[in-house]
Amino acid sequence: MKKTGCRYGTHRVISPEGVLPQAALKIDNDMDIYDNEILVDVIALNIDSASFTQIEEEAGHDTEKIGRKIMEIVEDRGKMQNPVTGSGGMLIGVVEEIGDALKDKIDLKAGDRIATLVSLSLTPLKIEKIMDIKKDIDRVEVEAKAILFESGIYAKLPKDMNENLALAALDVAGAPAQVAKMVKPGDSVLILGATGKSGMMCAYEAMKRVGPTGNVVATDLREEALELLLKNRFCHKAFSGDARKPVEVMNRALEMNGGREYDIAINVVNVQNTEMSTILPVRDGGIVYFFSMATSFTKAALGAEGVGKDVTMVVGNGYTKGHAEITLQELRESEALRKIFEELYV
Amino acid sequence: MKKTGCRYGTHRVISPEGVLPQAALKIDNDMDIYDNEILVDVIALNIDSASFTQIEEEAGHDTEKIGRKIMEIVEDRGKMQNPVTGSGGMLIGVVEEIGDALKDKIDLKAGDRIATLVSLSLTPLKIEKIMDIKKDIDRVEVEAKAILFESGIYAKLPKDMNENLALAALDVAGAPAQVAKMVKPGDSVLILGATGKSGMMCAYEAMKRVGPTGNVVATDLREEALELLLKNRFCHKAFSGDARKPVEVMNRALEMNGGREYDIAINVVNVQNTEMSTILPVRDGGIVYFFSMATSFTKAALGAEGVGKDVTMVVGNGYTKGHAEITLQELRESEALRKIFEELYV
Repeated sequence: MKKTGCRYGTHRVISPEGVLPQAALKIDNDMDIYDNEILVDVIALNIDSASFTQIEEEAGHDTEKIGRKIMEIVEDRGKMQNPVTGSGGMLIGVVEEIGDALKDKIDLKAGDRIATLVSLSLTPLKIEKIMDIKKDIDRVEVEAKAILFESGIYAKLPKDMNENLALAALDVAGAPAQVAKMVKPGDSVLILGATGKSGMMCAYEAMKRVGPTGNVVATDLREEALELLLKNRFCHKAFSGDARKPVEVMNRALEMNGGREYDIAINVVNVQNTEMSTILPVRDGGIVYFFSMATSFTKAALGAEGVGKDVTMVVGNGYTKGHAEITLQELRESEALRKIFEELYV
Repeated sequence: MKKTGCRYGTHRVISPEGVLPQAALKIDNDMDIYDNEILVDVIALNIDSASFTQIEEEAGHDTEKIGRKIMEIVEDRGKMQNPVTGSGGMLIGVVEEIGDALKDKIDLKAGDRIATLVSLSLTPLKIEKIMDIKKDIDRVEVEAKAILFESGIYAKLPKDMNENLALAALDVAGAPAQVAKMVKPGDSVLILGATGKSGMMCAYEAMKRVGPTGNVVATDLREEALELLLKNRFCHKAFSGDARKPVEVMNRALEMNGGREYDIAINVVNVQNTEMSTILPVRDGGIVYFFSMATSFTKAALGAEGVGKDVTMVVGNGYTKGHAEITLQELRESEALRKIFEELYV
């Protein structure tokens, strides 16, 4: 009988001791699975953009050298984690074997085509052969095996849409799913950075959840992109503004909500110093949701105190139950959103 | 009739335009108040420790030079914000005048002795004369006036306890007040960094709120200090552990909660890399509360996703309604806590 491993995969950490797989320098990539692991026959690696760029430059843009570098990293670490950037990426593959302890607990069977939604930087991987490297989309096609831990998250790739379309949406699955769970009918919602990939999905989801009595207001720098949101009814109102200018954003935002402060503000802006623009327009007792990786913890914490705002500030968690399903559903039900995604991100 | 200013004080920002008073380089410290401002007759400035140390070193520990430097900063900026560290501090004073628009809205009258709980880095200040500088406690006694904006937070200094005791507690008022509001009867609560000033107050408050059916577990490095918490019943159980070692902390923490994951974890540790130790022991749907300024936003966000934890992660807000009252109440009702505070922090 097979052994049961730690649900977080610490049983595969070789060094340093006592850390989680993501922080480890070397993990065990023996492909004989534990009782609570999933073995995946890997089709392709989608390398994180920062990581791929670094490797490509180090290799002087030579495809063969890029391949050798990737093989070296995986042989050395047991996972595809770029030692310079620390980042990984995700993979696409077919489920080959599911450990007995998991079989009846999860909605997955051998043969299912999945994308992993945990980082390659913590995923045991063994590459037999690199088949092709598509430099324009940071994709490496391989003959390889990988292992998903019990805590590992994944999405079954839907059969009713283009794979790259699904991947583009799954890439930002956390944010719209959190919006779906948090926003209630009648809420007023301000979305900062609303014209990006994540922003559009959040706006669409917020519209669905507040309706018909709420108010969703979108803001971003780009006037034209905001027109697109308005035209497609992904928001009730929109204004162009610089999220680094809190007073201006607050004044415009309040104007668009009948002078009242908002129940919820969602930050998906990808520049720094936008914390105050997110905090100021929200009412006492309201929620400020930071999904931007450019958020500064101390600027948010000290900023809210400085203006005496009794708001709950939440760190955007990339994972919440059902996040992949909620996100893909948006593309299924909105032809407009799907068309925009196909045009911009596929 | 007097004019009404912005509740956040932007009407006093001189440069750069469009920012909040904290981010401003120069604010207007004219002591003729607006309709919604409070004029304070200042007794003493408690300079932020990082700021005082920097000024003291620049002045070669010469008291007179320290005083001159402080005068210069305030003349230049209209507020006591150290240009090197960016930080401020707080002040103690007596309310001199309250603008008409505020008079009936707030629980304050002329003659009340208060401590401001917003930073000096955003408070209009005009110093007439420095009376004394107490280098051992970073305190500057002054003849000065200051202004509190409508959004400014403050605490009336209690008459039933030593002023320095009250200040020591008010300094960390946010954390225990958030615990008071968040923790429910029956909850299991893990407190990381429990033996510090903030940690002890959080533990005491958690005990009060979970009782008698909950479980409060304290952890920190210092065995001896944990004994003090146990002896005084500020927690049900305690274990010594290094919060930078997530697997170890998780295993010990689960042991102390009957193998179950926690409803809430509170991080008041003051070292880096303790995010995962806070996230791992919490159940799906539970709350992870980061109160440490050493928290990394990205480590928290990516870390929770990496282990597939559907937890709500909250950025500790130093302000919540009634925070000063909740915190001072702890010292009133617990003789044990008061004695520890008097010994360690006064």
